[in-house]
Amino acid sequence: MTITPPALSVFETLESEVRSYCRGWPAVFDRAQGSHLHDEDGHTYLDFFAGAGSLNYGHNNPVLKRALIDYIERDGITHGLDMATTAKRAFLESFQNVILRPRDLPYKVMFPGPTGTNAVEAALKLARKVKGRESVVSFTNAFHGMSLGSLAVTGNAFKRAGAGIPLVHGTPMPFDNYFDGQVPDFLWFERLLEDQGSGLNKPAAVIVETVQGEGGINVARAEWLRALQDLCHRQDMLLIVDDIQMGCGRTGGFFSFEEAGIVPDIVTVSKSISGYGLPLALTLFKPELDIWEPGEHNGTFRGNNPAFVTAAAALNTYWADGQMEKQTIARGEQVERALLAIVDELGGEGVSFRGRGLVWGMEFEDKPRASAVCARAFELGLLLETSGPESEVVKLLPPLTISTDELDEGLRILARSVRETA
Amino acid sequence: MTITPPALSVFETLESEVRSYCRGWPAVFDRAQGSHLHDEDGHTYLDFFAGAGSLNYGHNNPVLKRALIDYIERDGITHGLDMATTAKRAFLESFQNVILRPRDLPYKVMFPGPTGTNAVEAALKLARKVKGRESVVSFTNAFHGMSLGSLAVTGNAFKRAGAGIPLVHGTPMPFDNYFDGQVPDFLWFERLLEDQGSGLNKPAAVIVETVQGEGGINVARAEWLRALQDLCHRQDMLLIVDDIQMGCGRTGGFFSFEEAGIVPDIVTVSKSISGYGLPLALTLFKPELDIWEPGEHNGTFRGNNPAFVTAAAALNTYWADGQMEKQTIARGEQVERALLAIVDELGGEGVSFRGRGLVWGMEFEDKPRASAVCARAFELGLLLETSGPESEVVKLLPPLTISTDELDEGLRILARSVRETA
Amino acid sequence: MTITPPALSVFETLESEVRSYCRGWPAVFDRAQGSHLHDEDGHTYLDFFAGAGSLNYGHNNPVLKRALIDYIERDGITHGLDMATTAKRAFLESFQNVILRPRDLPYKVMFPGPTGTNAVEAALKLARKVKGRESVVSFTNAFHGMSLGSLAVTGNAFKRAGAGIPLVHGTPMPFDNYFDGQVPDFLWFERLLEDQGSGLNKPAAVIVETVQGEGGINVARAEWLRALQDLCHRQDMLLIVDDIQMGCGRTGGFFSFEEAGIVPDIVTVSKSISGYGLPLALTLFKPELDIWEPGEHNGTFRGNNPAFVTAAAALNTYWADGQMEKQTIARGEQVERALLAIVDELGGEGVSFRGRGLVWGMEFEDKPRASAVCARAFELGLLLETSGPESEVVKLLPPLTISTDELDEGLRILARSVRETA
Amino acid sequence: MTITPPALSVFETLESEVRSYCRGWPAVFDRAQGSHLHDEDGHTYLDFFAGAGSLNYGHNNPVLKRALIDYIERDGITHGLDMATTAKRAFLESFQNVILRPRDLPYKVMFPGPTGTNAVEAALKLARKVKGRESVVSFTNAFHGMSLGSLAVTGNAFKRAGAGIPLVHGTPMPFDNYFDGQVPDFLWFERLLEDQGSGLNKPAAVIVETVQGEGGINVARAEWLRALQDLCHRQDMLLIVDDIQMGCGRTGGFFSFEEAGIVPDIVTVSKSISGYGLPLALTLFKPELDIWEPGEHNGTFRGNNPAFVTAAAALNTYWADGQMEKQTIARGEQVERALLAIVDELGGEGVSFRGRGLVWGMEFEDKPRASAVCARAFELGLLLETSGPESEVVKLLPPLTISTDELDEGLRILARSVRETA
Repeated sequence: MTITPPALSVFETLESEVRSYCRGWPAVFDRAQGSHLHDEDGHTYLDFFAGAGSLNYGHNNPVLKRALIDYIERDGITHGLDMATTAKRAFLESFQNVILRPRDLPYKVMFPGPTGTNAVEAALKLARKVKGRESVVSFTNAFHGMSLGSLAVTGNAFKRAGAGIPLVHGTPMPFDNYFDGQVPDFLWFERLLEDQGSGLNKPAAVIVETVQGEGGINVARAEWLRALQDLCHRQDMLLIVDDIQMGCGRTGGFFSFEEAGIVPDIVTVSKSISGYGLPLALTLFKPELDIWEPGEHNGTFRGNNPAFVTAAAALNTYWADGQMEKQTIARGEQVERALLAIVDELGGEGVSFRGRGLVWGMEFEDKPRASAVCARAFELGLLLETSGPESEVVKLLPPLTISTDELDEGLRILARSVRETA
Repeated sequence: MTITPPALSVFETLESEVRSYCRGWPAVFDRAQGSHLHDEDGHTYLDFFAGAGSLNYGHNNPVLKRALIDYIERDGITHGLDMATTAKRAFLESFQNVILRPRDLPYKVMFPGPTGTNAVEAALKLARKVKGRESVVSFTNAFHGMSLGSLAVTGNAFKRAGAGIPLVHGTPMPFDNYFDGQVPDFLWFERLLEDQGSGLNKPAAVIVETVQGEGGINVARAEWLRALQDLCHRQDMLLIVDDIQMGCGRTGGFFSFEEAGIVPDIVTVSKSISGYGLPLALTLFKPELDIWEPGEHNGTFRGNNPAFVTAAAALNTYWADGQMEKQTIARGEQVERALLAIVDELGGEGVSFRGRGLVWGMEFEDKPRASAVCARAFELGLLLETSGPESEVVKLLPPLTISTDELDEGLRILARSVRETA
Repeated sequence: MTITPPALSVFETLESEVRSYCRGWPAVFDRAQGSHLHDEDGHTYLDFFAGAGSLNYGHNNPVLKRALIDYIERDGITHGLDMATTAKRAFLESFQNVILRPRDLPYKVMFPGPTGTNAVEAALKLARKVKGRESVVSFTNAFHGMSLGSLAVTGNAFKRAGAGIPLVHGTPMPFDNYFDGQVPDFLWFERLLEDQGSGLNKPAAVIVETVQGEGGINVARAEWLRALQDLCHRQDMLLIVDDIQMGCGRTGGFFSFEEAGIVPDIVTVSKSISGYGLPLALTLFKPELDIWEPGEHNGTFRGNNPAFVTAAAALNTYWADGQMEKQTIARGEQVERALLAIVDELGGEGVSFRGRGLVWGMEFEDKPRASAVCARAFELGLLLETSGPESEVVKLLPPLTISTDELDEGLRILARSVRETA
Repeated sequence: MTITPPALSVFETLESEVRSYCRGWPAVFDRAQGSHLHDEDGHTYLDFFAGAGSLNYGHNNPVLKRALIDYIERDGITHGLDMATTAKRAFLESFQNVILRPRDLPYKVMFPGPTGTNAVEAALKLARKVKGRESVVSFTNAFHGMSLGSLAVTGNAFKRAGAGIPLVHGTPMPFDNYFDGQVPDFLWFERLLEDQGSGLNKPAAVIVETVQGEGGINVARAEWLRALQDLCHRQDMLLIVDDIQMGCGRTGGFFSFEEAGIVPDIVTVSKSISGYGLPLALTLFKPELDIWEPGEHNGTFRGNNPAFVTAAAALNTYWADGQMEKQTIARGEQVERALLAIVDELGGEGVSFRGRGLVWGMEFEDKPRASAVCARAFELGLLLETSGPESEVVKLLPPLTISTDELDEGLRILARSVRETA
């Protein structure tokens, strides 16, 4: 495929320098369907990024599209603040019947504003309000968002530097396997909590991702998550799982923490919850934590009703039975085999991989190579992004609805890109 | 009209206690068109709230609806992170040609995430980064959002208390007319800035609304805004106008600050920018401030492409000429006459009003009466909300596209509601 | 008098650049007695600075000197942490009998460490602990000390910049007469407190000096102080009077707030409390505020027993009757007449003065002239310092024990210095 | 010895509940000489606490006493702000000739106010100013003082809680041997620094005690200190050694860090620097860090001239040769043998000890026993204090000038106290 340099002029002249993905993928995209995007020059790209996890059901999924167009056609409420609407009720009922009840999860649902960072901000506020303490523990290489509350518990130094004020009230602790098994889990964290002279401000809560997506596809073991939950209980801290990127089926089950058998006190959900790439976010919490006063946290777009419509359709279509989870795990095994083959081809030198469900990362010791692989993949028609603190990990995040053939095709392009960047 | 108590059960049992509007308007809304909403029991409501300013072109505006459905039908990109897309280009070009160029505004455009608070967080970060100072001055009764950065410059004590941490790095100054003309403008602020012993941390920026919507429809005079701009220039502070609620034509001109003839350094835009109630936000700033590194601020939903489509359609439809501005001012005069009549009827006792364009507030000395008026209006089929620190102001925020008849009808209901709560 | 440039070498080579007074007074001082210092070259200086208010009873006051030497000779406890000692008991009894009881002041006494900033830190901690709120209001041009807690409520921008972190949790309010009577007292402060939308974090306490020494000899009127006390009571804030420089008789009465008839909740005392220039500080508070746990605030030198000895001697010698107060007021009137004469001589142009008791300030519109006056006075054998945010005020702070002749001499030198810097 | 309950009335009725040592040692002390204190009832106490390390040369050391009385007799300057005085010059010259030059230490000397916490506040300010970063790393169980800047880098949860505001800008790291050798030194700290995604705000400086006195007599190994210095150099952080309690010969050499062969960037000195228990403190730093503006940090009592006099006498008397260091090490060995014997007597069960020079700690697994031992020792005429986060360590801190007989006597009382609390 030959790529003609696209006419990016208005992006370059009018849009801020802060723009980012458009630099790595220099195309002007026009349409998309399922696992593919099409640019205005007629090129087609296979999508192994899925809107950073926002398109678990693919682009413009036809079932959701039908529901969405019908809703718009019939003049359903579009913007509803936090008014009661029929669309919101349908979503809440689906979420209760399809997701919460079968999993025996007791959560109350809050609509904190339609983006992930809104959900995290609401979670942190609530935890602090409930416990009357201001400190929150996060983990190395965590990513929770760009507004000041979320940024304070985010690890990335480059993002943090953007704050323009000292980010405080958060303390980082080592994520699972941070020292390659050299140090017992929670040795440092627990000791600080127990030592009255440690200098750690007693935390209101711990916020954790089960798999760190932006941080480099770092996968927490189930036993580590259970031990973390135990530690939180023993030390009177709330456990917040940020399931914004890893929830909605990305790791197999609807929530990524199901496999570990834990029940976090607070859960944040966004990205793929609308199913269609429309902005929507939820903050879930145990009923006894629901001490909010009416309107104490609000937001103009927290009732994005078209997103409720596609969200309900997605839940009813994909989560009424266990097929989606099984398929994701099968697709994940397909990825795993392919990555193993790539590593074998390299003789296991300078590369490693890890993942769960349909999120995988391939880390290069020669860190810039990860970006080179993504650049070559783009030329070959595959959208791939890096992650990790130094962009040293190639991140695989295909739609969950991807076919085995499409997955194979993408994995072949990946293998070729690795080969050609040797 | 008789209202049957609606079946709110799932809202009451599953949704968090934080829900708010659904308490004052106990109906389950289903459809909406133009200036009206319809609940599932067949009742119709005239909308004087317009999604808190997000529906300046009315509900499900047919021109935008057509563009939106066409876009979805043809599988246009829905979720685009900050990739270049044809929809984004069309929006940027329209924004440049219809809005920026004719007003000779030099702004770069940033998509900071699709909600107002994202736009404010980005504005504050950038101001701090540019000036290398952390402090920001806001005004009494300001409202800028619920995430920690925005909340720190928001006045409302109840909202602030939700933070769970001390909100610092912001200092409030008196908004225009805070002392009823008793004190010269900026006397306190300027003196603090000039006095090397004042104890005020030198601010990076000042953030202001031209009309404080949540704060009680407090209208800044054009000369006050000009003097504020002068003060910012003299004291090396950036001027941020938060035009989230008052922009997009609410006060007449597209930007609410046009009338004053000022050019803020940074402007935040959201709510009605998509035109259809879809989440979208912009942070605009002078080119010389565009010192962002690529990706230094990001967000999953900052490229909400369906919103670009409706936004471009709204700009091209309503702002290519000066009709919208003229009409808004005319409608505003209609409101003003009606409010004057209401006040006259009360003998001018215990009530006052103020406003600009199509945003008006009616303040009651007997503060609870404002809520009573809104409650009665709801029974009579009119959606009205209060604002102000003690909810003492009835806020009129009809769609800009409302007809004179609809406006008359709503104003008659308002007058009746005032009368019946005496 | 001719001043030979002294050999400052070790000060210049070994001592940090932070040194300050030695620059304005380039002499190496050796001995001192009463109102005079002597340098090693045999020059004598009349002292109108009195150790920044630490030497109210003059240098090496013979009564205190005798008590001090006796105590050292007999091997009295020198360093006593916060152990009970006979010297501490004697001080406490004198303080109770001579100071607290006659004034009907109910205070508990805390020894927070022997410097003013220790006393302020303890006061702020206690106020926050009692009220459970973190914010404290201070006043424009306040000075409370250099450690981080005290610095956050200090106004001077130059001193604040030394912190290296953003100083938060404090908000400045206008000191008495900040707007030359143009604005009603507490208009801004009270409005912020009453307005639920003001954005002011509810303060735990207000900290105030009755006369701002470092800030430029700004004298609060008695009625302003009473109104401030009323405001604190109405708004549930503690009133802290920082009497470090103005207490111990500087303004006439032992406490500077006595004249206003107020009873602050917390009072800080230091500087002249030991009477001999030895480090000592007290934090006084109403008994119901004494919620400290044993050892919750501590410090190595809080029991400086030689200072207890001179402090007790000073109280018993000077405060057992009302003579000291009367004399201070008389001496103050002598200063006032002299300053009036100086101003008259200048035709009242470009200069003004104010003061209370034996603290007076002479402000020059031509700001650098204040420093020139002090420099010339030094050449003429008088120690005088400037104060105010731009060092525009010549500050008169002679020992309270100064004779009328000495005072006259100093005032003549001052007049001459003013004349010679025209 | 029989102790009659002393008449503590004025302490109980007038002094704040914050008083502490007087509770554990219920006597009213009157005189002291060398290693002994005498109460007003005629009881004598052997001092194994030495003013928390402020009386390294014993109480009322006769050499220093003579110099002090002579100085007072001849009306030497008592209070000198930061004016040049002959007493200050003599001190600076002695400090340079006796301490700095022989050790080839290049430090500039700052007088930051006469208490330890003043010295720490100045050190932290300077480090932040130099590096332009606000964060500082401290260690578990560190103690640096009670003012807000120092308290933020202090570990003790009880002391921290007294702040009344969230203490931020500091992050604790594990002190040497925190995990009993289980974890490589600096594994966590270094990894956080190197990982761009760790979430650690880049520190301006690290502040450390070579032996943590208040923290439980935790002794850092020389190699750990050297590795810490290396880490600071590699990572562009300043190394601050807080030598307030361990300096002035407590561990053998004048500075406690000499043994490790490191040269910290900044050193804080206080407690025994005056030699006589008079308040005095120094902040030392490398010349290239001396970027203070004149007067940027100040304080009323930073020129405590009587303390300069005794300090110079102490330096000249005890540090002109290496005798003091040798004697301290010999006395330390005497202590070590005695502690070993005590442990042996207990069969090594439930007790351990550690120390360096003349600072030793004996830790009891049965934590309350440490307090019981001190209480029994007091009854037997020995002053002993606990330390550690749960007061589980008996702390031995005798004067360095103690005789072998006195030391033996105290160690016998200690042994008996341990025996009698079994």
